[in-house]
Amino acid sequence: MARKLRMGMIGGSLDAFIGAVHRRGAALDGEIELVCGAFSSNPEKSKATGEALYLPAERVYGSYEEMILKEKELPEGERMDFVAIVTPNHVHFPPAKMALENGFHVVLDKPITLNRAEAEELKKIWEKTNLVFCLTHNYTAYPMVKEARHLIRTGVIGKVRKVIVEYPQGWLYKLVEGAGTNRQADWRTDPARSGAAGGVGDIGTHAENLAEYITGLKITELLADLSIFVEGRRLDDDANMLLHFENGAKGILHNSQICHGEENDLNIRIYGELGGLKWRQMEPNTLLLLNQDTGTKVIRTGVNAVSRAAQVHTRQPAGHPEGYVETFASLYRNFAKAVRAKEAGEEPDPDFDFPGIEEGVRGMAFIDTVLKSNADGAVWTKFE
Amino acid sequence: MARKLRMGMIGGSLDAFIGAVHRRGAALDGEIELVCGAFSSNPEKSKATGEALYLPAERVYGSYEEMILKEKELPEGERMDFVAIVTPNHVHFPPAKMALENGFHVVLDKPITLNRAEAEELKKIWEKTNLVFCLTHNYTAYPMVKEARHLIRTGVIGKVRKVIVEYPQGWLYKLVEGAGTNRQADWRTDPARSGAAGGVGDIGTHAENLAEYITGLKITELLADLSIFVEGRRLDDDANMLLHFENGAKGILHNSQICHGEENDLNIRIYGELGGLKWRQMEPNTLLLLNQDTGTKVIRTGVNAVSRAAQVHTRQPAGHPEGYVETFASLYRNFAKAVRAKEAGEEPDPDFDFPGIEEGVRGMAFIDTVLKSNADGAVWTKFE
Amino acid sequence: MARKLRMGMIGGSLDAFIGAVHRRGAALDGEIELVCGAFSSNPEKSKATGEALYLPAERVYGSYEEMILKEKELPEGERMDFVAIVTPNHVHFPPAKMALENGFHVVLDKPITLNRAEAEELKKIWEKTNLVFCLTHNYTAYPMVKEARHLIRTGVIGKVRKVIVEYPQGWLYKLVEGAGTNRQADWRTDPARSGAAGGVGDIGTHAENLAEYITGLKITELLADLSIFVEGRRLDDDANMLLHFENGAKGILHNSQICHGEENDLNIRIYGELGGLKWRQMEPNTLLLLNQDTGTKVIRTGVNAVSRAAQVHTRQPAGHPEGYVETFASLYRNFAKAVRAKEAGEEPDPDFDFPGIEEGVRGMAFIDTVLKSNADGAVWTKFE
Amino acid sequence: MARKLRMGMIGGSLDAFIGAVHRRGAALDGEIELVCGAFSSNPEKSKATGEALYLPAERVYGSYEEMILKEKELPEGERMDFVAIVTPNHVHFPPAKMALENGFHVVLDKPITLNRAEAEELKKIWEKTNLVFCLTHNYTAYPMVKEARHLIRTGVIGKVRKVIVEYPQGWLYKLVEGAGTNRQADWRTDPARSGAAGGVGDIGTHAENLAEYITGLKITELLADLSIFVEGRRLDDDANMLLHFENGAKGILHNSQICHGEENDLNIRIYGELGGLKWRQMEPNTLLLLNQDTGTKVIRTGVNAVSRAAQVHTRQPAGHPEGYVETFASLYRNFAKAVRAKEAGEEPDPDFDFPGIEEGVRGMAFIDTVLKSNADGAVWTKFE
Repeated sequence: MARKLRMGMIGGSLDAFIGAVHRRGAALDGEIELVCGAFSSNPEKSKATGEALYLPAERVYGSYEEMILKEKELPEGERMDFVAIVTPNHVHFPPAKMALENGFHVVLDKPITLNRAEAEELKKIWEKTNLVFCLTHNYTAYPMVKEARHLIRTGVIGKVRKVIVEYPQGWLYKLVEGAGTNRQADWRTDPARSGAAGGVGDIGTHAENLAEYITGLKITELLADLSIFVEGRRLDDDANMLLHFENGAKGILHNSQICHGEENDLNIRIYGELGGLKWRQMEPNTLLLLNQDTGTKVIRTGVNAVSRAAQVHTRQPAGHPEGYVETFASLYRNFAKAVRAKEAGEEPDPDFDFPGIEEGVRGMAFIDTVLKSNADGAVWTKFE
Repeated sequence: MARKLRMGMIGGSLDAFIGAVHRRGAALDGEIELVCGAFSSNPEKSKATGEALYLPAERVYGSYEEMILKEKELPEGERMDFVAIVTPNHVHFPPAKMALENGFHVVLDKPITLNRAEAEELKKIWEKTNLVFCLTHNYTAYPMVKEARHLIRTGVIGKVRKVIVEYPQGWLYKLVEGAGTNRQADWRTDPARSGAAGGVGDIGTHAENLAEYITGLKITELLADLSIFVEGRRLDDDANMLLHFENGAKGILHNSQICHGEENDLNIRIYGELGGLKWRQMEPNTLLLLNQDTGTKVIRTGVNAVSRAAQVHTRQPAGHPEGYVETFASLYRNFAKAVRAKEAGEEPDPDFDFPGIEEGVRGMAFIDTVLKSNADGAVWTKFE
Repeated sequence: MARKLRMGMIGGSLDAFIGAVHRRGAALDGEIELVCGAFSSNPEKSKATGEALYLPAERVYGSYEEMILKEKELPEGERMDFVAIVTPNHVHFPPAKMALENGFHVVLDKPITLNRAEAEELKKIWEKTNLVFCLTHNYTAYPMVKEARHLIRTGVIGKVRKVIVEYPQGWLYKLVEGAGTNRQADWRTDPARSGAAGGVGDIGTHAENLAEYITGLKITELLADLSIFVEGRRLDDDANMLLHFENGAKGILHNSQICHGEENDLNIRIYGELGGLKWRQMEPNTLLLLNQDTGTKVIRTGVNAVSRAAQVHTRQPAGHPEGYVETFASLYRNFAKAVRAKEAGEEPDPDFDFPGIEEGVRGMAFIDTVLKSNADGAVWTKFE
Repeated sequence: MARKLRMGMIGGSLDAFIGAVHRRGAALDGEIELVCGAFSSNPEKSKATGEALYLPAERVYGSYEEMILKEKELPEGERMDFVAIVTPNHVHFPPAKMALENGFHVVLDKPITLNRAEAEELKKIWEKTNLVFCLTHNYTAYPMVKEARHLIRTGVIGKVRKVIVEYPQGWLYKLVEGAGTNRQADWRTDPARSGAAGGVGDIGTHAENLAEYITGLKITELLADLSIFVEGRRLDDDANMLLHFENGAKGILHNSQICHGEENDLNIRIYGELGGLKWRQMEPNTLLLLNQDTGTKVIRTGVNAVSRAAQVHTRQPAGHPEGYVETFASLYRNFAKAVRAKEAGEEPDPDFDFPGIEEGVRGMAFIDTVLKSNADGAVWTKFE
């Protein structure tokens, strides 16, 4: 397949946030081209978006159902290879299911579905196919996250004892939803479109995914204290949790949308028997390796000798900052490699990994566990 | 009393840590002079310390009992005015009690006593006197802590919603106690000398005190998950807690001595309805005032217009860093002012405040509550 | 022209650095597609690069001359609209001249040409056309650079008094060139390919351009002290300069490639009568606005209310870091807008500005002035 | 001499800045006691200061001449051992001369005298005595400055190539002097009291001293471009300089009092053939050791294994910040050790060094060279 992979997008009209991120990420490395889209359930909006993206009118569809069915009819050299689904959570499962059932690979924005039952059903559907599935927990695609994981895997900080993962934001510090002026806030605080969790689903799942990915350890038990601080809000906007990990490590996870003045400060600290690690998403090209006796070593993209996994997720030389869009680019690039490997009958390269259906199901289980713990009075609850 | 206050020190021999800090703090502002001491229960060590401090031999005592009794007999123009007690925790209550009962003001290192019963008894003893009592929760004496408290009192960040207070250290990441080579570690991990809590008593109490001092809010309920990560250790070296405050605010407190590579990173973040505040002990001259809409304002000692309470705890112009020793200096300076005010029959100046017996009792109650919560399986426990 | 602009690339084979940056920048916003290329003077390398980029074989050329002539013959709906020239400096002028003379818009990597004479000739050629020309001084495309310029234009820091602009790198701290193992080092230290200046041409011109762009002030006089610290090197690897600006402001500019351990730390500080500004390329989403009396205000992309010019160069919400590749994307996006405006007979939008031929000629004059000052013994030299 | 050293202070009345810093520094380590003072040329002010400092009335003098003569008559067990001179620059030479001639050791605030001639005369006077002389270039007493010097001496960063030393302040960004409301500004901008240089004498000398102290290299040639930016000011408030060092290294030094919003940001960067070093006075407990290939190592007081010189200038464990007052404490402590060594006929300990008369004379030569270079049109000038 000596050609770019062909992407069809579901959702992502001009006034959405994450659709443009996906398009930029997919475009960055030149492996993928957008060939068609069903950008909105409103056909006028879909059409206007398609025009703005210079798509031919005949490849802009009024619904994802139409897109999947019509694209399927196109000849192989022309039809889309995969769909990228960037809709609100309640429109994750149906198009993902339909795409898989019609033979298209899938890239899906997180969280995977509206609830755990959908996630498990989607997993069953996917298992019957030979298709590639990518869930965009993008933060694990930062090179210094790859390096942190590598350092733990190779024993550099020894057995992990303590994990602190934080995800404070402040954008929902007051009631901005409901007035129709903030699309993002509107659907993310609406149980019908977002699911049973608010901030926990939106960003808490990123924190959980990051902690488990870097440490390689499963959370086995947690205790969650959720709040709705803003009057009139319907879903949690703040969460404080204590964690127990499978190896005996303990931890803290907190996420919030009411931390006034915080931007998007996902960060993690991990302490082991032999050292510590610190990473902040807002300065992603730096990883600190701490040692009580020899001090702190600064690991930077493009400077230190790092693992191959970190290297292949670094695009620029030292001091040329990389950021958020590159994480999506890496997911799309890795996904493309996996599709090509699959078509060639080869094993995927493990240094070009990406989150898939398992991480999606686990994220939904996390949400369920958190909600149950909180509903029971913020008590310890098994996370399976 | 147009003379320096006269200090007698109990504990603080040459090989101790906190004694020298107290001596430097007391000396810094020229309000206090060290006139005598019982620096060790070992008379030779006490003598050697006295000599190194240039004290006359006759004012260096073999025990605190001797010091208190003999000094009491000296004429008023000569005898000590107060004692500074800088011994391990199990030697807090007896000398403090004896000093108060013999008419001496007291400065006492935290935590106040070995257990809550002692603390409450000491309180009763003190209430019968007309003496000044200072407990050296020194971190609240930083000018930017004073300013943070002022900003909350004056409503700048509105009603507090969330508090995150952290106190990670790494110096006990392995078993350093017991070999007789680390005096600090030896007594701080020994239940007989330190009390029933390890890190929670040593540093967790600072975190609790800081959070309540700045916010002006009491913690009413907490849940604590304590660990001993280092094999062979007898007291907690790691603690993760969730907090509920009296006004409905929620919080997280964690302290640790096994965070490999962390120095002494006490820090606090507070988010209210109108803004946020961030302060780190390791860069104490900076306070960040966050706002989601207008961005972050950097408040620095000597730069911004700040409250009188912050001003009177600042000694240097902008950019001339102040640090840890100044916090002890401020406590001693404020204590000296309070003693002079008392002798003059005046009210103490509220901008020159310092922690006293109440904070001490509350600290012991905190330890008890934490231990109980943890013993009961890390469950929610009232903190009264 | 409701279609993407069509780009033909000159230079940028797979083992080059800046070509991939240009391709990613051009792709990011979906306004441009790569349709052809002459990626190397080595036809095999050019062909391999074209294949890796999924270009049809017939649009991959063995030389830029062939590309320009053959593309010119293609029908309007198919042929390239502009060339992007990403070759070493000695291959800037010939293809730029030929492209302009054959009616193609040009994007050219900096510095504009091998020497000032070429630059001035190119300017004359360009003035006879109605074509759009963009020089990729990319650092001025950061949103916080736009905002800094806006704050100075609107008088926020008052009349500028002092400018400090720095560009330290360390990658040439030893002799890495000449062995054929470091292509970047090889040509950048070779007078025949790089021009008469080394570091001054490569990065000093960025510093000069940034300082003049943000302040809106011309440097009128300078004094330069150049060095070659590494034995065997042929061009300057370190430069220290003093500057005088047209309004009486004074300044310092230094650039270096031997600052061991420095990555790419372009940064600028500007002090005026009413305030100061600080910006660092390695943390590009932050701009500090200093005031002696009211303290420092942190301006962040996506947080504070900023100028339209800053807004339109920001792609992500607060705390989702943007970086280096976005600066190239902005140049290409702005260039594309200018081409479309020109075709529509409209004025370009001033908030979507980009460097052009004037900045290129000024850069070459800067190099000449610096070299003359240094050759004369590091003396004050007029910069016209 | 098993007693504290006795200090007599000249200058330093209650409304002065640096006098209190000296008193606190001298008091901190318990080696020195203030026994007398001539705190002001105004006897009433001197008396009020003495009272506030709890000095006996008979040891508070109306003039330094009176103090020196009367103290000399006191018995050895009572009279002062040394004078600390903390007056404006024009009152440095006369009391220093008189103290030395009457057998008193001297601690003198920098710059040493009003001009070079005085400095050289003072040197001659001192050389005839057997007395200890300390000039309070305090910034070299920071532990991480000691460590930086040690790392260079032991070859860790190899031969030094480039030095950048900066000292920006902003407190004189407007005309604050002359109204009698800012004593500091009044005398520091008055040629009769400050000398022929303004900022260069006040802070430029610190920068020069720091650069030469850390690198162990002399500046042999410099070029200075001075400015008076504030109308009505009489002395330089901004200076930009290029430097040449004896080993071929090059450098930049700039100091300013008009950098709006800068506090006291003395900092230095040094790049050698094998690595780099960075240190900032405003975060003094951190030293960065840079390496292009292995990245940056963070060296912190109390954490890393450091030289004995750094250790003996560190008072607190890791993460308990130390600051400005400790630098004065170290100078006074080291001075006291030197006095005791002298009295014992021993060699001083080289790890407890402090600046003396040589550094003072060199500082005055620096000022002269800078002024000459600037007066000649900002040209290269030998610095001998």
